[in-house]
Amino acid sequence: MKINCAEILCVGTEILIGDIVNTNAAYISKRLAALGVNQYHQGVVGDNPQRLKIFLKEALDRADLVILTGGLGPTYDDLTKETVAEIMGKKMALHQESYERLKEFFVQRNIEMTENNVKQAYMPEECMVLQNDWGTAPGAIIENKEENKAAIILPGPPREMKPMFEKYVVPYIESLSDSVFTSKNVNIFGMGESKVESILIDLMQNSTNPTVAPYAADGEVRLRVTAKTAEKEEGEKLCSEMIEKLMQTEVGKYIYGVDTTVEEALVKKLTEKNKKIAVAESCTGGLVTGKITSVSGSSAVLDGSVVSYANEIKASLLNVEKNVLDTFGAVSEQCALQMADGVRKLMNADIGISITGIAGPTGGTPEKPVGTVYIAVSTEEGSECQMLTLRNNGREYVRNVSAKNVLHLAMNAF
Amino acid sequence: MKINCAEILCVGTEILIGDIVNTNAAYISKRLAALGVNQYHQGVVGDNPQRLKIFLKEALDRADLVILTGGLGPTYDDLTKETVAEIMGKKMALHQESYERLKEFFVQRNIEMTENNVKQAYMPEECMVLQNDWGTAPGAIIENKEENKAAIILPGPPREMKPMFEKYVVPYIESLSDSVFTSKNVNIFGMGESKVESILIDLMQNSTNPTVAPYAADGEVRLRVTAKTAEKEEGEKLCSEMIEKLMQTEVGKYIYGVDTTVEEALVKKLTEKNKKIAVAESCTGGLVTGKITSVSGSSAVLDGSVVSYANEIKASLLNVEKNVLDTFGAVSEQCALQMADGVRKLMNADIGISITGIAGPTGGTPEKPVGTVYIAVSTEEGSECQMLTLRNNGREYVRNVSAKNVLHLAMNAF
Repeated sequence: MKINCAEILCVGTEILIGDIVNTNAAYISKRLAALGVNQYHQGVVGDNPQRLKIFLKEALDRADLVILTGGLGPTYDDLTKETVAEIMGKKMALHQESYERLKEFFVQRNIEMTENNVKQAYMPEECMVLQNDWGTAPGAIIENKEENKAAIILPGPPREMKPMFEKYVVPYIESLSDSVFTSKNVNIFGMGESKVESILIDLMQNSTNPTVAPYAADGEVRLRVTAKTAEKEEGEKLCSEMIEKLMQTEVGKYIYGVDTTVEEALVKKLTEKNKKIAVAESCTGGLVTGKITSVSGSSAVLDGSVVSYANEIKASLLNVEKNVLDTFGAVSEQCALQMADGVRKLMNADIGISITGIAGPTGGTPEKPVGTVYIAVSTEEGSECQMLTLRNNGREYVRNVSAKNVLHLAMNAF
Repeated sequence: MKINCAEILCVGTEILIGDIVNTNAAYISKRLAALGVNQYHQGVVGDNPQRLKIFLKEALDRADLVILTGGLGPTYDDLTKETVAEIMGKKMALHQESYERLKEFFVQRNIEMTENNVKQAYMPEECMVLQNDWGTAPGAIIENKEENKAAIILPGPPREMKPMFEKYVVPYIESLSDSVFTSKNVNIFGMGESKVESILIDLMQNSTNPTVAPYAADGEVRLRVTAKTAEKEEGEKLCSEMIEKLMQTEVGKYIYGVDTTVEEALVKKLTEKNKKIAVAESCTGGLVTGKITSVSGSSAVLDGSVVSYANEIKASLLNVEKNVLDTFGAVSEQCALQMADGVRKLMNADIGISITGIAGPTGGTPEKPVGTVYIAVSTEEGSECQMLTLRNNGREYVRNVSAKNVLHLAMNAF
C-alpha cells in the first residue's frame, strides 16, 4: 500500500441539514496535510446506503484512501460499516473482542444492552479493528492491497473520532510513507497578509524544503513552514532554521509565536516571567477572561477578573471616577485607562487590561458608532490605551476582534 | 425552474488542508432544509479549475441547483466564476455596474485598484448579478431554464456570503416554490433524547403536517416541528398548535424555549421579570458571563460579574469564609453557595449564580476528579447548589457543559 491521495467522506443527514458543522472534515484534512497526503475533494452524504455506495465507489476510483466518519451507531439507519464492507468485498462477522468490550461497557454503566447494540460489534472480515476507548463503536481499516485501495471508518462524534485518528490512523499512514512531513505555523499579528507577502515573496518563491506559504486566519496572518524529510528530527531542524530566518526579516517583530494562539502565548509569557494578569471587561463581557482561562495552567497567572457592564460597578469595584464617566462616558480612553488600573490594583496583579466599547447592534451614536472600542493596559510602570474602530460586522465580530486586540496589547506590555 | 434538490460545492484549498472549518456549508444546508429543498450530497474541491469542472458537472447532473461558495477573489487562482460560466455555456463580460461599485470601493478606502481587481467585475453574461454590499466580489445566479438547472455563486467569507444568501438567494428559491416551509426548534433540557422519543413516539409517527423530529444538539435535545403550507401564516399556526400540544405532554416541563439558546431564554426571562443577574465564576473563567453578554440587550439584566480563580479573590470580593475554603476547599457545595450569595450582594443583583470545579486536565484528586463541578444559585428567597459529575472529556467540554447547566439552574430559580 502507498497513499498519495485521500478523500474524506462524512456520512450523516445531520450534516446535510445543517444541524452540525462538519468539524471532522477540517480536523482530518489538517492532519492529512501535515502527513503529506494530498486531498483534492471531500464529500458529505446522508444516511442512505444506496447513495453512500455510489459516492464511496467514486471516491475509491479517485483516491488511494477514503476516510469515512459517522453512521456507526446502533440504529437501523447507521449503515456505513456494512456498506463499506460490501464495496470492499468483505463479509460482516461478529468481532468477539469488540463484543466483550461492548458488554463490559453496558455492565459498568448498569444499562441494559439491547439487540441493536450488538450490531456495533459486527465488523468486516479481515479488517484491522480500531478499538474505541472513548465510546461504543469501533472503527476499522479495510485494505485491498492488490488495487492499492483502503477505506478507514471512524465514529462520528469528534471526541471519539479524534483520539482514534491519532492513536491508529496516524501511525497507519506513517507506516506507509518513506518520508515525514513537519509543519509549523508561524503566528503574525499587526501586519496584513499582502504586506507580509510583499516582504517575503522572494523567500517564499525560492524555498522548496521547507516551503513557506502565507494564509489569513481569524484576524491574523500565519505562515506555514513545511519540510519533507526522511527523519522527523531533520524536519524539525529545517523548520527551526527557516523560522529563525523569518525572524530576521521585517516581519520578525510581528511574529508572536509558533503553533499557538495569542491566549496561549500570553499565558506562556506570563508564566515564564512569573507575572499575573487581571481583566476588566465591559463590552466583551467575560470573553477575554474566558479565552485566557481556556488555557490549561492559566490559574497560575490569573487570580481574577471583573465584568463591569454597569457604570456603578465600574465605579464601585474598579474605582473609575464618577467625573470620568460623566464627562467622557464609559466608552472613552479615560475610562479604559482607569478600568485597567483599577482591576490591576483590585486583583493585586502585575498587569491590568481593560476593554470598553460598543459591540452593538444598538447603542451606537454618530460620535461613537458601533465598533468603537477602547482597550488599555496598565502596569506599575505606566499605562497605555488604544482606540479601535471596527467595522460593524455584528456583535460577535466586534467582541471577538476586540478581545484578540487586547490580548496582543497585553503581550507587548511586559 | 423548479428546485427539488440542491447540492453545495465549496471551492477552496484552504478547506481541503483544514485551515478553515466549512461553516458555509452548514449555514446554507440549514437554510435549504428550512426552505424545503432536499440535499443528498455536498462537496469541497480545491482551487483547481479542471477538477472544479468535473465535480460541478456531476453535481449539476444530480441536482437542479448547485450553490458554490469561494474562489471569487482577485487572484489568478480564483476561478470559480469563469469555470461555472463555461459549464453553464455563458461568456464572461465586464459588468458595468459592478465595475463602478468596485472603483468606488477603492476610492473610498484610498487604496489603488490594481488590474487584478477588475477581474471581480467580470460576470457571466445573462446572469443575475448579486450585488455585494459587504465586500468586493459580486455573486451571481446563472440559469439554464431549458434543462431546469441553476448555479449560484457566492463569495467565500461568511460575513459576505450569509447576508448575500439571505438578501438574494432566499427570495430566489422562494419565488420558485408553490409552498412555504415553516420550521421551529423546540428546546428541551433535563431529559435525554431516548426518553423524549419514547414519550412522543406516537405523536411523532402520526404527525404529517407539521412533522416532529427529535435531534440531540450541544448537550440538549431539540424537536424540529416543520409545516408545509401554501401561506406562511398557516404554517406558523400549525407549528404553534403542535408546540402547544407538546407542552401538554410529560416533556412539556422540560421545554425552555423555541428557536432559542439557554442564554437567550435567560436574558429574555430576566428582562420580562425585570430582574438582574450576577455571576461568580471559577473554573469557567468568564465563559458563563461571556455567553450571557453575547445576547444583545443583556446590559439591562447584568451589571457585572466576577471571575475568581484564586481563593484570595473568592474571599476578598465574594466574602467566601476562610473557614469554608480551609475545611471544604474551593470546589465544594459550601464555597459555591457563598460565591453565589457573595456576587449577588456585591453586584446588588436579584439572582447570583456561581460555578466552581475542576476543569482539568490537571488538578483532579481521587475524591474530586476532573469534571467535579458545583453550581449554585442565590436569590433573596434562598439558595440552591447542584453537584455535576462530568466525564473528563477535556477542559473545553467540562467548561461548556458546566456553563450550560448553571444557566439552566438560573432559568428555574425565578
